[in-house]
Amino acid sequence: MTDVRVGVIGVGNMGAEHVDILHRFVPQAAVTVVAGPDEERVHSVAAVARARPTSDSYALITDPQVDAIVIASPDSTHAGLVIAAIRAGKPVLCEKPLAPTVDECVRVVQEEQRSRDRLVSLGFMRRFDPAYTELKTALNAGRCGIPLMMRCVSRGVSFDPGENSELSISGSAVHDFDIVSWLLASAITEVSWHAPRRTSAAASFPDPQLILLHTEGGVLAVVELFLNAGYGYDIRCEIVGENGAVSLANPARLITDSARTRSTGFPADWRSRFADAYRLELQAWIAAIATSHQSALATAYDGLIATAVAEAVIASKKGGGRKVAVRVPAA
Amino acid sequence: MTDVRVGVIGVGNMGAEHVDILHRFVPQAAVTVVAGPDEERVHSVAAVARARPTSDSYALITDPQVDAIVIASPDSTHAGLVIAAIRAGKPVLCEKPLAPTVDECVRVVQEEQRSRDRLVSLGFMRRFDPAYTELKTALNAGRCGIPLMMRCVSRGVSFDPGENSELSISGSAVHDFDIVSWLLASAITEVSWHAPRRTSAAASFPDPQLILLHTEGGVLAVVELFLNAGYGYDIRCEIVGENGAVSLANPARLITDSARTRSTGFPADWRSRFADAYRLELQAWIAAIATSHQSALATAYDGLIATAVAEAVIASKKGGGRKVAVRVPAA
Amino acid sequence: MTDVRVGVIGVGNMGAEHVDILHRFVPQAAVTVVAGPDEERVHSVAAVARARPTSDSYALITDPQVDAIVIASPDSTHAGLVIAAIRAGKPVLCEKPLAPTVDECVRVVQEEQRSRDRLVSLGFMRRFDPAYTELKTALNAGRCGIPLMMRCVSRGVSFDPGENSELSISGSAVHDFDIVSWLLASAITEVSWHAPRRTSAAASFPDPQLILLHTEGGVLAVVELFLNAGYGYDIRCEIVGENGAVSLANPARLITDSARTRSTGFPADWRSRFADAYRLELQAWIAAIATSHQSALATAYDGLIATAVAEAVIASKKGGGRKVAVRVPAA
Amino acid sequence: MTDVRVGVIGVGNMGAEHVDILHRFVPQAAVTVVAGPDEERVHSVAAVARARPTSDSYALITDPQVDAIVIASPDSTHAGLVIAAIRAGKPVLCEKPLAPTVDECVRVVQEEQRSRDRLVSLGFMRRFDPAYTELKTALNAGRCGIPLMMRCVSRGVSFDPGENSELSISGSAVHDFDIVSWLLASAITEVSWHAPRRTSAAASFPDPQLILLHTEGGVLAVVELFLNAGYGYDIRCEIVGENGAVSLANPARLITDSARTRSTGFPADWRSRFADAYRLELQAWIAAIATSHQSALATAYDGLIATAVAEAVIASKKGGGRKVAVRVPAA
Repeated sequence: MTDVRVGVIGVGNMGAEHVDILHRFVPQAAVTVVAGPDEERVHSVAAVARARPTSDSYALITDPQVDAIVIASPDSTHAGLVIAAIRAGKPVLCEKPLAPTVDECVRVVQEEQRSRDRLVSLGFMRRFDPAYTELKTALNAGRCGIPLMMRCVSRGVSFDPGENSELSISGSAVHDFDIVSWLLASAITEVSWHAPRRTSAAASFPDPQLILLHTEGGVLAVVELFLNAGYGYDIRCEIVGENGAVSLANPARLITDSARTRSTGFPADWRSRFADAYRLELQAWIAAIATSHQSALATAYDGLIATAVAEAVIASKKGGGRKVAVRVPAA
Repeated sequence: MTDVRVGVIGVGNMGAEHVDILHRFVPQAAVTVVAGPDEERVHSVAAVARARPTSDSYALITDPQVDAIVIASPDSTHAGLVIAAIRAGKPVLCEKPLAPTVDECVRVVQEEQRSRDRLVSLGFMRRFDPAYTELKTALNAGRCGIPLMMRCVSRGVSFDPGENSELSISGSAVHDFDIVSWLLASAITEVSWHAPRRTSAAASFPDPQLILLHTEGGVLAVVELFLNAGYGYDIRCEIVGENGAVSLANPARLITDSARTRSTGFPADWRSRFADAYRLELQAWIAAIATSHQSALATAYDGLIATAVAEAVIASKKGGGRKVAVRVPAA
Repeated sequence: MTDVRVGVIGVGNMGAEHVDILHRFVPQAAVTVVAGPDEERVHSVAAVARARPTSDSYALITDPQVDAIVIASPDSTHAGLVIAAIRAGKPVLCEKPLAPTVDECVRVVQEEQRSRDRLVSLGFMRRFDPAYTELKTALNAGRCGIPLMMRCVSRGVSFDPGENSELSISGSAVHDFDIVSWLLASAITEVSWHAPRRTSAAASFPDPQLILLHTEGGVLAVVELFLNAGYGYDIRCEIVGENGAVSLANPARLITDSARTRSTGFPADWRSRFADAYRLELQAWIAAIATSHQSALATAYDGLIATAVAEAVIASKKGGGRKVAVRVPAA
Repeated sequence: MTDVRVGVIGVGNMGAEHVDILHRFVPQAAVTVVAGPDEERVHSVAAVARARPTSDSYALITDPQVDAIVIASPDSTHAGLVIAAIRAGKPVLCEKPLAPTVDECVRVVQEEQRSRDRLVSLGFMRRFDPAYTELKTALNAGRCGIPLMMRCVSRGVSFDPGENSELSISGSAVHDFDIVSWLLASAITEVSWHAPRRTSAAASFPDPQLILLHTEGGVLAVVELFLNAGYGYDIRCEIVGENGAVSLANPARLITDSARTRSTGFPADWRSRFADAYRLELQAWIAAIATSHQSALATAYDGLIATAVAEAVIASKKGGGRKVAVRVPAA
């Protein structure tokens, strides 16, 4: 069987991670080209997989040695690159979000519809995290009864330099918007935005934030996003149903008893917490391509919906926390 | 040292519990009279402590063999009985709430002010729960930094027959309103009420409910009340600060490994969960009386404030979840 | 009802603790006399309960103002004092061990038999710890099936200055010898002693130690005693049966998320870990005396048995770890 | 880069698992031939990886389309097959144990020495389990101080039909013998065997068993093996040092609150518990072959040592639990 030749666009942490995982852990994938703006960085990332470096992302897309494309460049470039990949007729895995605005998302979805091929997969990798997968299985098995409430917590140590108020919602909280819909198999219909006073570590925008989501099925979800939580990278999720609750366990592997305390560690960031999720996602993506099956990853339409929720949340924030209905344009 | 002779009004679960605890675990307390409407029940409860049964609560208050009074009768009777106790010049421990309405609470507070004696203690027993006490100590020691968010969860197996929509807030959620203010040492200034679709176990009113509280210090607290959670009596509390979080641990004492699961148990109700809290509260109350010190329990004014928050929440609920400012009348 | 007037012998940590608990938490008990060798210390301990201080332990026993006696003096004095209490016809609660040698224990048991009254109670307070009590209830309810193995861990921060190799077994490990027999309701028949190299914190004798106990019912128990564990006071117990296991949960009440770790605390010593156990034990003891019922505490014979196990363990230690049968003399 | 072509011998659960993992998760590996005695079974296992089935294990070893060999056939066949692989000059990964007797192990080690190539890797996959790896890192980082004691627990639901008393030690407990030496980097020098009465689920031989191991460094390890524990597959490990303890956390990913209990699940067997370990082990093995590096897996000599410990334990068992020194023949 011939390997799927993958071109990776973007050489930040995320792009480098994808190259590494594809190379080390995904049979049937061969990273052939890597694109990025910084020449030195793109060389070093490409070298990991003995791939060809380039500064031209659009040339990578049409390169005959590239069968499939991973996009891990800045959010604002996603839509254009995905559309180019669709036009080249190549499967593309785009990191979330599909695009920061609904308008751009709609254009991508429409382009894909014209192509008549489901070429776009979206990197909502939590759907492949073994813990979230077990949560969904338990929910569907009726372990907690009909769901009524959810609580999602996404805490990080500190935010990236480029982070700002809208990006924190469209680029970070969007993970939880997708996971809520996916776990509950129910669309988010109404949102409202809330916040305490901001942490002194957050100079320029509100952090933490609290977002209430109502779903079509009547569930009320509370999403807490705290980018500068300081103490660790800490992801939690609980679903409360009519006769019980299911939640993610603490993923720590080691207990230390020392100095009057029993402790477990928190990861510093998403890399170790979601290493399995990224690996399983990429394996599923490549396996689908290699066998000409439909990818099991999130779709462009899922990306459109998540961004529509993000826009509603941003509108609520601007409107002082009022309730805002989520509108998903016909695409 | 002579014992403090206590009269207990109310012979429901709570009244019976108080009689039992006073009798078995509180040195210097002697339950001398027990009042309640159901003759058979009042006799059996009184018998536990070899106390005299009566059907006349007001006579109990002025009885010369009663030095101090515990009120555990229905919420609507609280204000009148507390006022009678103040007029009799006797220390009184009233179960929460002080009264279901702010107006009544104000009358109690004013009566106490006239008496020039701090005679009223309020049964917010969570303040004596060893776990909540440790939480407060840890917070004050700066263990999580300046507080930003709180999460309070109060879940029960099923509600009492007499429960209704307003009582669930003024009589049950009120525990969390008090604990938020007490832990943070900060007043609740604004509230909003939210809910998912109600559990099918709740015929007549919304359950679960989600209440957002903003405090003077800028903390945003989420209070979840789920009276019919079904699976167990489950009380949780987390405070998230600028550099960490502190929360109550699972209070289970036993781990069972069996049938492919590792499990711990939930109590069926508040009795076992808060047994220590009730005992320590009553011991503190009696010790203060015996030594003529000011009681360390919640005050009538604390009760007024908690009911004012409850009224604001009820107003938000009636107003479709809008934000409502908490107004505490000058008393 | 008249209070039970208690005389307490011994004003070390343990004696002081008993005086405090009796005074503050045990209705129907009044500490009237406190005996100890150090005048200053005996005065300050007695003052807590407004009791009379004395340096003469034997005079305390026969004092007409003493109805019942607590013995918390050094282990070597226990037998003589208990025998004096029996001769005075007064109920006595002796701290474990009953005596460091089987011979002395036998003399106490014989003295009690002559008196025809069950006057002696032994302070194996773990039997009153709510967690151990739940463990026993779960075991008896068949939660883990027929028991096969046990694991007991008793770790402390550092040992007392007076500690030595034999005392660590006869005075400390003896807690676990009793709890094994009590939980399993089965006598210990054979023992062997084992040890790794000693911790560098232990200058003079082996620490930690590992003791294997075989019971009449065929259970094999491993008892680990580590007096200088350093990190905290940590008591564990697990019973493994034919279809499951039951064990004590971590008793911590608070979780702290901070500095890349989630942690709970360990107590510094037995005082906070077993505060409930001591309180409940003393309440049960006084309640039995006040109502002229048989005490539910461990008996002199239980003390004899525990010391017999300790002697067998010491013999195994001296014999290089060979198996030694436990011999309980007819008493 | 050309794939490493792997031949797998053995089509039981373990062999099938290896074929599946190599095929799905190990880049650079291609399973080309699968050997086993049962024609139907060998066909279905081979089909997973589109490999060629054969009934002749020795022919597989010399097959020119086989670069490297995995041995997952019954324990008694290991030595012969490994020696054949060495003679064929091919890298071989043999499932533990290397052989059930020390004599056979010695022959393998000597054969490898003659070949002057380190061709043999041994499947002590726990060394690749992320939790054990963290444990070793923490120990080496001094997290618990100098190690003094260890506790290893290996419990399963029920044993395989072919299991017997000696195999349970040489084939199952051997995992813990290796992990003790590996974690502590210290040889096991003396052992003793102990047991409670056997569970009624174990007809033919003692289960559970308790094995004490003394290491060169002075550590005392307690290994509990309970093949018919019934309740789940449960692997535990704790190392206690001079100032703390480190242990494996419960690996469950999901918490369920339901029916008065909070619970997490146990896996049914080793497959899910050690899925990561097997995958990482095979990846490391193939990566080493592909890059002509020395494998990081356990060596033939490690296998010899573990079997030497097993023989000493079996001797102790036959000798009524006496202490037996471990003798590793010069090889």
